[in-house]
Amino acid sequence: MSTYQQIVLASRPKGQVSPDNFRLETATVPPLADGQVLVRNHFLSLDPYMRGRMEETKSYAVPQELDKVMGGGTVGEVVESKNPKFAVGDKVVGMLGWAEMGVADGPTLRKIDTTHVPLSAWLGAVGMPGMTAWYGLTQIMQPKIGETIVVSAASGAVGSVVGQLAKMRGCRAVGIAGGAEKCAYVVNELGFDACVDYKAGNLEADLAAATPNGIDAIFENVGGKIFDAGLARMNPFGRIALCGLISGYNGEPMALNNVRAFLTMRLTLRGFIVSEHMDLWPQGLAELGNLVGSGKLKFRESVAQGLAAAPEAFIGLLKGRNFGKQLVKLV
Amino acid sequence: MSTYQQIVLASRPKGQVSPDNFRLETATVPPLADGQVLVRNHFLSLDPYMRGRMEETKSYAVPQELDKVMGGGTVGEVVESKNPKFAVGDKVVGMLGWAEMGVADGPTLRKIDTTHVPLSAWLGAVGMPGMTAWYGLTQIMQPKIGETIVVSAASGAVGSVVGQLAKMRGCRAVGIAGGAEKCAYVVNELGFDACVDYKAGNLEADLAAATPNGIDAIFENVGGKIFDAGLARMNPFGRIALCGLISGYNGEPMALNNVRAFLTMRLTLRGFIVSEHMDLWPQGLAELGNLVGSGKLKFRESVAQGLAAAPEAFIGLLKGRNFGKQLVKLV
Repeated sequence: MSTYQQIVLASRPKGQVSPDNFRLETATVPPLADGQVLVRNHFLSLDPYMRGRMEETKSYAVPQELDKVMGGGTVGEVVESKNPKFAVGDKVVGMLGWAEMGVADGPTLRKIDTTHVPLSAWLGAVGMPGMTAWYGLTQIMQPKIGETIVVSAASGAVGSVVGQLAKMRGCRAVGIAGGAEKCAYVVNELGFDACVDYKAGNLEADLAAATPNGIDAIFENVGGKIFDAGLARMNPFGRIALCGLISGYNGEPMALNNVRAFLTMRLTLRGFIVSEHMDLWPQGLAELGNLVGSGKLKFRESVAQGLAAAPEAFIGLLKGRNFGKQLVKLV
Repeated sequence: MSTYQQIVLASRPKGQVSPDNFRLETATVPPLADGQVLVRNHFLSLDPYMRGRMEETKSYAVPQELDKVMGGGTVGEVVESKNPKFAVGDKVVGMLGWAEMGVADGPTLRKIDTTHVPLSAWLGAVGMPGMTAWYGLTQIMQPKIGETIVVSAASGAVGSVVGQLAKMRGCRAVGIAGGAEKCAYVVNELGFDACVDYKAGNLEADLAAATPNGIDAIFENVGGKIFDAGLARMNPFGRIALCGLISGYNGEPMALNNVRAFLTMRLTLRGFIVSEHMDLWPQGLAELGNLVGSGKLKFRESVAQGLAAAPEAFIGLLKGRNFGKQLVKLV
C-alpha cells in the first residue's frame, strides 16, 4: 500500500505519439497534510485534449510537464482522509492523472453518487465529455425542432451524447463515423437518423444523401475534409460548435477549403472548452445524470485493463480505434 | 431625355472578370405608373459583392440575370414623379444599378439630406459600406477599450470606417492594406495606430510587430493568407466579423490553414450581410451621418467618369486598384 504505479511524460512526440513518449514509474504514497485526501483510482479517462497538452506550443491548456504524471480525469474511492468533507469509502471524481493512486486537496475532488449512475459514467456521459456535448449543443448549436444537426466522431464519448440530446430536442441527427460497425451502432443503438461512414470513400455524396434539407448546425470534432464536407451542406444562419480537430492533432496538414460558406451562408462558428463554463455544469450534469439513470441516454465504453495499457489505448484513441468512451480500468 | 445608357451582364466570368462580360446599351425611358419615380443617377456605387452575383452558383444573393441591368446602389435626383412622397429635385438613394436613369417604385427609394453629408457619401461612409463597418464592429467584434482590432482592406470604403470607429471606442486600430501609399493614408489621414503593407513581403512579422498585445477582434474583408496571418495573432475569446473574402472572388484557391486557432483561442467567427439587419440602419446611419457631417469620420473616393468607365473601374476594384470608395460619376 505504500507504493503505486504512475505514468509520466518522458518526451514530447514528433508527429505521431509513440509508446516511448511515456514512462511507467513507481511512486511512494506521501503522508497526508491537513485537508488532503488519498484516493485509489478505479478508472482513468483518456481524452483527445491530452494530445494538445503533450506539445510545448501555445495552446489553451498549460503544456504537460516532462517527467510529471500525465494529467487526466479519474474516478475512485477515498482510502484515507484528512479532510472532514470526505470519508473513507466515498466515491469521487478528480484529476489525479495516469496513476493508480493520488493525493488531492479537497476542493479538486467532487463526491459522486453511484446509486443510479455507474462509477465509470462520471468520466463519460455524466462527466466532462457529456458536458462538452451538452454545452456545445445547448449554448452554441441551439437547435430548433425539425432542424438537421451533424456530429463528427459520432460514436465517441462526446459525439454520441450530442446526437442523442439533439434527437430528444426534435432534430434530425446525422452522425459521421469511421467504419460500418460504428455507423450501425450510431443508428441502431443510439437512435441517430443516419450515419455516414467516412471511410467508405463517398463522404460528400453520402453526407448529401443523409441531409436532404441541408445542415443547420454542426458539432465538429474532427476538422479537415470532414469539416469541409459539412460546410458545403450548411443552411443560412447555421451554427458550428468547434470542439476538436482530431484529424490534425499529430501535425497533419488540415487546411479548410470551404471558407466561403461562412460568408455566403452567414454562419457562426465558436470554439470552446467546457471547463471554462463551470457555471453551467450543475444544470447540464443534472440533465445528463437523469437521462443516464433512467436509461434514456446510452453510451458505450472501450476499457483497457491496467495502468500499463494506457499509452497504447491513448494512441488507439487518436487513431479512432476506440468505440465509445476510452477508459483504463485500474482496480 | 427619352433615352439613356445602361450596362447589362453579357456573360458570366470564367475566373477573372473581363470587360466583355458587360455590354453598354441604350434604353428608352418608359412612362411612369402610379407610385413610380424617375431618377437621374448622379453616382453609381461599385462594390465587391457584385462579383458574387455574377456567378450562377448558390450564394447569399440572387444571381445577377444575364442581359439585365447590373444591379447596384445609386444616388441621384428625382426628375419626374407619380408618387406623392417624392418631388422633382429630391435627392434619393436607391438600387437603380449601372444606368444613367431608372424608374423605381417609391418604397425602394430613400430621400436623403445633403446639407451636411455630400451626395456621394450616402453610397459610402453613410451608406451600405459604412453600415457594414458599423454592424460588424458593434454587433460582432464588440471591442472593449484598450483592445487591439485588425481590419484588412483598411483603406477601402468599409475598412476605413471600421478602424476610425474602433479608435473612437478606445481601441488600438491596425490596418492591413496593399502598398506604402495606402498604408500611409491609413495611418496619417485616417488615424489608425499602424498599417501593415501586405505587398511588402513580411506580412506575418509586420503584423506581429504592429500587434504587440495580440489581436482581440478582426474585421475580415480579404481571406486566404491575410486571414491566416491574423488568426495566428488572436488572443483568447477573440471575435471575427467575416464581411468578405475578396482574395478568392475570382476562383483562386483560398484555403485557411490556421483553423486550430479557432479552437485553441476559443474564437467566435460570424459571417454577415448588412442588408439582413435593416432594423439597425437608423441607429448606425445616425451615428455615421453625424460623424461625417462634423468632419470626424474621414473617407476617400476613387471616382470613374461616365457610365462606360464602370466595367474597368469594377475590375480595378477587385484587384485593389481603387483607393477608398469606388464610385462612377454619371452627371
